[in-house]
Amino acid sequence: MRQQPQFARTIRVRNDNRVGVLASVLSLCARHGADMGDIRIVSAGPVHVVRDIDVVLDSAATLAALLGDLAAFPATQVIEVRDEVLDAHAGGKLRTSAALPVESLRDLSLVYTPGVGEVAQRIAADPTAAERFTVIGNAVAVISDGSAVLGLGNLGARAAMPVIEGKCALLSELVGVYAVPVLLASQEVDEIVRTVAAIAPTFGVIQLEDIAAPRCFAVEDQLVERIDGPVFHDDQHGTAGVTLAALLNACALAGLELPRLRVGQVGLGAAGLAIARAVMHGSGNPVWGADIAADALDRLAAAGGIPSHLDEIMATCDAVITTTGRAGLIRPNQVRPGQIILALSNPRPEIAPAEALAAGARIAESGALINNLLCYPGVCRGLLDSGARRATPDLFLAAAQALVELTPAGALLPNPLDRTVHQGVARAVARAAMEAGLARHELDRDYFEAAPVPRHPRL
Amino acid sequence: MRQQPQFARTIRVRNDNRVGVLASVLSLCARHGADMGDIRIVSAGPVHVVRDIDVVLDSAATLAALLGDLAAFPATQVIEVRDEVLDAHAGGKLRTSAALPVESLRDLSLVYTPGVGEVAQRIAADPTAAERFTVIGNAVAVISDGSAVLGLGNLGARAAMPVIEGKCALLSELVGVYAVPVLLASQEVDEIVRTVAAIAPTFGVIQLEDIAAPRCFAVEDQLVERIDGPVFHDDQHGTAGVTLAALLNACALAGLELPRLRVGQVGLGAAGLAIARAVMHGSGNPVWGADIAADALDRLAAAGGIPSHLDEIMATCDAVITTTGRAGLIRPNQVRPGQIILALSNPRPEIAPAEALAAGARIAESGALINNLLCYPGVCRGLLDSGARRATPDLFLAAAQALVELTPAGALLPNPLDRTVHQGVARAVARAAMEAGLARHELDRDYFEAAPVPRHPRL
Repeated sequence: MRQQPQFARTIRVRNDNRVGVLASVLSLCARHGADMGDIRIVSAGPVHVVRDIDVVLDSAATLAALLGDLAAFPATQVIEVRDEVLDAHAGGKLRTSAALPVESLRDLSLVYTPGVGEVAQRIAADPTAAERFTVIGNAVAVISDGSAVLGLGNLGARAAMPVIEGKCALLSELVGVYAVPVLLASQEVDEIVRTVAAIAPTFGVIQLEDIAAPRCFAVEDQLVERIDGPVFHDDQHGTAGVTLAALLNACALAGLELPRLRVGQVGLGAAGLAIARAVMHGSGNPVWGADIAADALDRLAAAGGIPSHLDEIMATCDAVITTTGRAGLIRPNQVRPGQIILALSNPRPEIAPAEALAAGARIAESGALINNLLCYPGVCRGLLDSGARRATPDLFLAAAQALVELTPAGALLPNPLDRTVHQGVARAVARAAMEAGLARHELDRDYFEAAPVPRHPRL
Repeated sequence: MRQQPQFARTIRVRNDNRVGVLASVLSLCARHGADMGDIRIVSAGPVHVVRDIDVVLDSAATLAALLGDLAAFPATQVIEVRDEVLDAHAGGKLRTSAALPVESLRDLSLVYTPGVGEVAQRIAADPTAAERFTVIGNAVAVISDGSAVLGLGNLGARAAMPVIEGKCALLSELVGVYAVPVLLASQEVDEIVRTVAAIAPTFGVIQLEDIAAPRCFAVEDQLVERIDGPVFHDDQHGTAGVTLAALLNACALAGLELPRLRVGQVGLGAAGLAIARAVMHGSGNPVWGADIAADALDRLAAAGGIPSHLDEIMATCDAVITTTGRAGLIRPNQVRPGQIILALSNPRPEIAPAEALAAGARIAESGALINNLLCYPGVCRGLLDSGARRATPDLFLAAAQALVELTPAGALLPNPLDRTVHQGVARAVARAAMEAGLARHELDRDYFEAAPVPRHPRL
């Protein structure tokens, strides 16, 4: 799911306190294609109302144009434009802390010396004890070479840091893992594999991020071979898990059954090929696929899919998923009445959902909804809880099915901020690992049956 | 400073509530060589007092013998023996969390998408921006191959985890860095160097730990060459910084001046050679050194020291530091009257301080006091705050001098739990980096002059 640059800003305006002024301001924002965020009253008097308006725009030039229009509008005055995103990222988004107090010499003797000496010796005698008595059994590495940062392209490793540390912050908060972003200096497959394998003893789960196709396939395959523990590329499998859940929910909303549908996947990069694989794994049927790269079609065929092209897919498939990064690729006259269309490229989809629905689609959604934040936290938690040896397609299928069960009636997907959703995914993944004989830890009935804990204070 | 295995336990006893019973119990503990920790009353009645007694013993056999003696003592009854160290380590000693709330869609848009896209692009345009807008500028990796875990030997990487995650927990709590333990699968110099260099873009400081001599010297030298940022081996330079501070304080207490003293270093492993170097750097004079390995003496000579042997050092040096791991190596009749003796091997020194003092030493201390926890947290903080390009001997000398200034009157070293001590070390290191032209960040007067913040709630 490609993503183009976006500029998030908070604009503070002093509006005349009259009916209709705010609507006019928002109309100006809309004229420049702004995605609207929160609008908060800062102060209100009889003459003026001061508001903070959060907007996301395409570019700095669009922001300048919007500010020009606002300056020309007499009933409002722009007081300031704040870059709260940059402020929020200053100093980084991650913190570490000790799990125990460090306030007395006794605390030190437990956390540090002499206490650690005995623990180290136990682990030397039985290396599996490290999972119990160190952070390894709760540690997830989120690793990137920066070769495909969001959909922005090869920006280099350091530019991947805001993304992967954000994922680590979310992993920490949503499922309580110890999460570590790791940047790689090299973008060569062999060197990536060697480096990740060389630090693998540190972590219980290795999550690859933002590594460009096609090298991401070789990197993942080789690491799965070399590392004794779960490794997965989230841009592939996490995205696919969420997409499969949305597709299953779309089928249910439309009164259809996935195994009876012909599904097409347009765009066979990291996410697209993984979605095709996951749909085939979940439905038992081949998926039709299209891509401009011949090797991408070869990979689809090798995975059991059917190489095709856009026109054929639009004309023949009951459900179409697109991950091309090409806004407006699909014309309304290509939409087949009754189709399910998930146009996932961000921030501008291959066809706007409203256009697709107007052209006869039964269900149409864009990538704004298909947030892989719904999948990877619960998957990591479930892999760690069960001590799973590998992260297999069955485990991601279990995650997708759990998301389906956790989706509120009428929706396509649950709320990613609801901690009980992640707990549900974790349980499903842990159960699937046990059933597949991949689990090294025993989990008791409490793990699966205790009421989910809503750790989110507002839920 | 070698360390032998130790067993820390909490023994809960029900004593008759009579004068002298506790003293008798402690005498039994002393008979088995127990280091005594805290003693806490659990409950007290007219007939009995229940207490938790924390002890550190040499071995499981010693524990069994002590319990046998306690069972034979009629006025006490052992209720339970708890392994609080293992309990404390269960699940690991480190946590991560988000630096920002993750409770609303607005929070998500800041921490995650779309906010991160713009930050990633800024960093792609200017990679130095990563230090400001990501966790890199606050991140310390504590990296080990497990080849010299404490003084226990080559226990393998996973057995190093309790040690290095403990150091990360302390770094987090004492100086607020984001600290990451990294275990290496290989113990080969080339592979260690390649791996650490391959993940170096992630971190602002790289701290090497528990890597055996002599390979630790080559690993550090090669990484300093390859990595654009500070790298240091704490077992060398952190230990040396604290030891130099203790030696300077010992001189002051004895009314002596270090540059006028002949100093001897017995044991030239990672810590010993680094102490010799630091003393030479701080005093301007050569240090006499002894080791059973010829190559260790060669390294000392290459560093400007004078190869010697134990008898000569004891007979001629005004101050002797020992890091051999050999308990009781020094006989009382080798002590020269008026000598300063820092016998640093843990848990049993080369000569007990009381023995050395009885034999005429002016000042004698053991390794229990020389805790390198006093050095590395402040050094890391100061390196990050100043954006230092390298961690040079001058910066560690500055840390040692700061420790001297921060030592309470009459003591050899300050309290490692006092957060103001670490802040003082950080300032000294940052100032030294600025003066050496190694600092990339401007630090204002407030950084150096504001009253130190005692972040420890009880201090």
